[in-house]
Amino acid sequence: MTQTQLSSALAYVQNQQERFQEDLKAFVQIPSISTDPNAKADIRRAADYIAGRLKGLGFQKVEVLPTKGSPVVCGELMSAGKGKPTVLLYGHYDVQPVEPLELWLSPAFEATRRGDNLYGRGTSDMKGQIVVVLAAIEALAQSGGMPVNVKVIFEGEEEIGSPNLEHFIVENKDRLAADIAINPDSGMIGEQIPTITYGLRGLAYLEIRLQGPNHDLHSGMYGGAVHNPAQVLCELVAGMHDAQGRVTLPGFYDRVRSLDSEERKELARLPMDDAFYLEQTGAPALYGEAGYTVIERVCARPTLEVNGLLSGFTGEGQKTVLPAKAMAKISMRLVPDQDPEEVRQQMGKYLEARTPPSVHWELIKHAGSFASITDPNIPAVVAMSQAMEQTWGKRPVFKREGGSIPVVVHMQQHLGIESVLIGFGLPDDNLHAPNEKIHLPTFYRGIETMVRYFNILGEK
Amino acid sequence: MTQTQLSSALAYVQNQQERFQEDLKAFVQIPSISTDPNAKADIRRAADYIAGRLKGLGFQKVEVLPTKGSPVVCGELMSAGKGKPTVLLYGHYDVQPVEPLELWLSPAFEATRRGDNLYGRGTSDMKGQIVVVLAAIEALAQSGGMPVNVKVIFEGEEEIGSPNLEHFIVENKDRLAADIAINPDSGMIGEQIPTITYGLRGLAYLEIRLQGPNHDLHSGMYGGAVHNPAQVLCELVAGMHDAQGRVTLPGFYDRVRSLDSEERKELARLPMDDAFYLEQTGAPALYGEAGYTVIERVCARPTLEVNGLLSGFTGEGQKTVLPAKAMAKISMRLVPDQDPEEVRQQMGKYLEARTPPSVHWELIKHAGSFASITDPNIPAVVAMSQAMEQTWGKRPVFKREGGSIPVVVHMQQHLGIESVLIGFGLPDDNLHAPNEKIHLPTFYRGIETMVRYFNILGEK
Repeated sequence: MTQTQLSSALAYVQNQQERFQEDLKAFVQIPSISTDPNAKADIRRAADYIAGRLKGLGFQKVEVLPTKGSPVVCGELMSAGKGKPTVLLYGHYDVQPVEPLELWLSPAFEATRRGDNLYGRGTSDMKGQIVVVLAAIEALAQSGGMPVNVKVIFEGEEEIGSPNLEHFIVENKDRLAADIAINPDSGMIGEQIPTITYGLRGLAYLEIRLQGPNHDLHSGMYGGAVHNPAQVLCELVAGMHDAQGRVTLPGFYDRVRSLDSEERKELARLPMDDAFYLEQTGAPALYGEAGYTVIERVCARPTLEVNGLLSGFTGEGQKTVLPAKAMAKISMRLVPDQDPEEVRQQMGKYLEARTPPSVHWELIKHAGSFASITDPNIPAVVAMSQAMEQTWGKRPVFKREGGSIPVVVHMQQHLGIESVLIGFGLPDDNLHAPNEKIHLPTFYRGIETMVRYFNILGEK
Repeated sequence: MTQTQLSSALAYVQNQQERFQEDLKAFVQIPSISTDPNAKADIRRAADYIAGRLKGLGFQKVEVLPTKGSPVVCGELMSAGKGKPTVLLYGHYDVQPVEPLELWLSPAFEATRRGDNLYGRGTSDMKGQIVVVLAAIEALAQSGGMPVNVKVIFEGEEEIGSPNLEHFIVENKDRLAADIAINPDSGMIGEQIPTITYGLRGLAYLEIRLQGPNHDLHSGMYGGAVHNPAQVLCELVAGMHDAQGRVTLPGFYDRVRSLDSEERKELARLPMDDAFYLEQTGAPALYGEAGYTVIERVCARPTLEVNGLLSGFTGEGQKTVLPAKAMAKISMRLVPDQDPEEVRQQMGKYLEARTPPSVHWELIKHAGSFASITDPNIPAVVAMSQAMEQTWGKRPVFKREGGSIPVVVHMQQHLGIESVLIGFGLPDDNLHAPNEKIHLPTFYRGIETMVRYFNILGEK
């Protein structure tokens, strides 16, 4: 690709900004909430929408392929030819639930611009990121042709832990064969800090259900007779951390890879100190495992979080009920080399040892995934570093991230390819929360970055 | 009243059984849920219904009197004349919420007979009890006239802690002046165990709200950085009991009147042992303060119960949220001489001392009431004992009860009258729970008892 063609592609991006924003608005409008069993039709609509967009870009073999859950959208644009590398682009077209609705300042599925931001569910996580990469492909295709081959795999179950994706990858190895994967489901540390993520935490998501009496009781007539399951639940959850903020599940730290001084130094360079986290979260004070900085705790140490609690009467006012049941959703973020299934067993052992005979317990398994680390010196990562430097005028930072992207592990295991983890979301994008947004100037810089990236990758 | 008149009244009760049941069904049909802010019209309908019933019985000065909340229904039937005692009948026409709806085997507000029971919200607590007493009045009025004078006070906010009743009583002392109060909001220990309650526990109902971050966070991106308020809530609630099942709020036991050996002996006579409570509750094991029997713990020792817990994502499946907020509804049952306001302050001190700086806390006050004890040797209680013995062929047991009836305290304080606490509900009536019911044979025996009671009281 000539320098003229690249300039032409970058000019195209400038000229088409409004249309790319409209493309994102249309995509956001489809409420493809994968946790909602009633949203199956919308999930399908979102898959069809993105398949249509691929066809419009000239992709071949575009298919909406069934799984046991949401369909997977695949397609390929192999016009660069055999001498050029093939990139496998990953994305997910599903989004998180939107409750509590009353906290949204504009409708969750009507993407609304306020200032430099576009608000709406999925604008950042990650419909917006898919739109970014497809916009870059469009700009290059319209300016002399794509310099690399591209295959896509867009799933619709990321927000529920991708229960069917591993099987799909195993069954479609040939279709997905590529040299490198691009996964734009990560993010940037700040508007002026281009970021490449090289490590991700894993996840073990569980649900604890306790049952005491066989029906709700009057707390006056029975308070003092039976063990309140909500009290027992609180005692069990409280015992899951010790006074040093360490997780107490038996054997939890046995496989945890320790941080060497080199990596601690690297992490300390990231501009994410206590002040950063206090500002991002609005919490009155930070908290975590003793002996580690906040960035170490978030990126490189395992944690245990309560994601949900429910028992008894939770409406307005009062009800003097002694509840029969209590429930907690609890997830552990894992680091190399923890095993999500082992962690589930550790929770089972903890409950077995600590639950009093006055209640019955049940442990339900939701998603599980291993942590992963990508080598930052491979050519595909170096090319991304260059593309970002050309766009922002500074080298990107390399970080590990607290979140979990199971597909990265599955692509390593089953396709033998590494993932380049990037994304053009910012820390204040309110992912998984009301008023999710994407910062539009960063969204457009993301498109420029991807134009340059495909160009550099095609020249290597 | 002659023996013939009494026999005639008892025969009337026999003949009118079906109609009394229909009266209860019509009353139950009105969903007068006082915790529901949208049920104001139904609350008013329930008040009007019972006012209409009083007028039909020949009551005078029947009025539906406004308060800041639900109206109070008053009226009087003074036909017995000045030489006869005046009984103040208390009742509440409001009911508990009905969630979870899916557990009801028949609609909550469509009273449905299955076997010997009539199922529906309020059948036992306490629309059914009001119907019992009014049926007895009807039977006597139709058989030669009421042997005593009766005034009624029916409130509509008992299930939310009677926030406006004390003020109403203070403002209406003359209207409510009487010799003794009858409060049929208590219950029986068993179908064949007539019961008079002489002690009630008090209540301090509070709500704890914690806020950590100022918005919900992604648990992967922030897990390890901030203190999860659901975790903190669990730690705080877990700390409210020690290993002996004692409540740890500072000073909680300072005013607790200790049980003397006489009263422990009396309580031990009640047929409510571990096996009874295991059967009633279906709990796998009992639990409570060390050093006390279950009946002592329920009747004569203070307790702390979690009535509700809520935080984060509680729907089906998973959401990797680190919640911004967590809430617990917590109520303490109090015994003489604990003060609900002091207990609230103790909770405040506990939270002040134990809440980490990483979250903000707020303590919201719901209902509060003192415990109470009535002398079992006063004539009005002795008359009730005789009426029960004539109906069941055995003397009633005298018990203390775990529940709270604030109006009993207010009538002692402001009207100078004691309450005779009875009721014709059974322990398995599912009060405050799905499938509330009343046992119809006991319901009819209740009417007979009240016919005899008024008769005995009129002869004294």
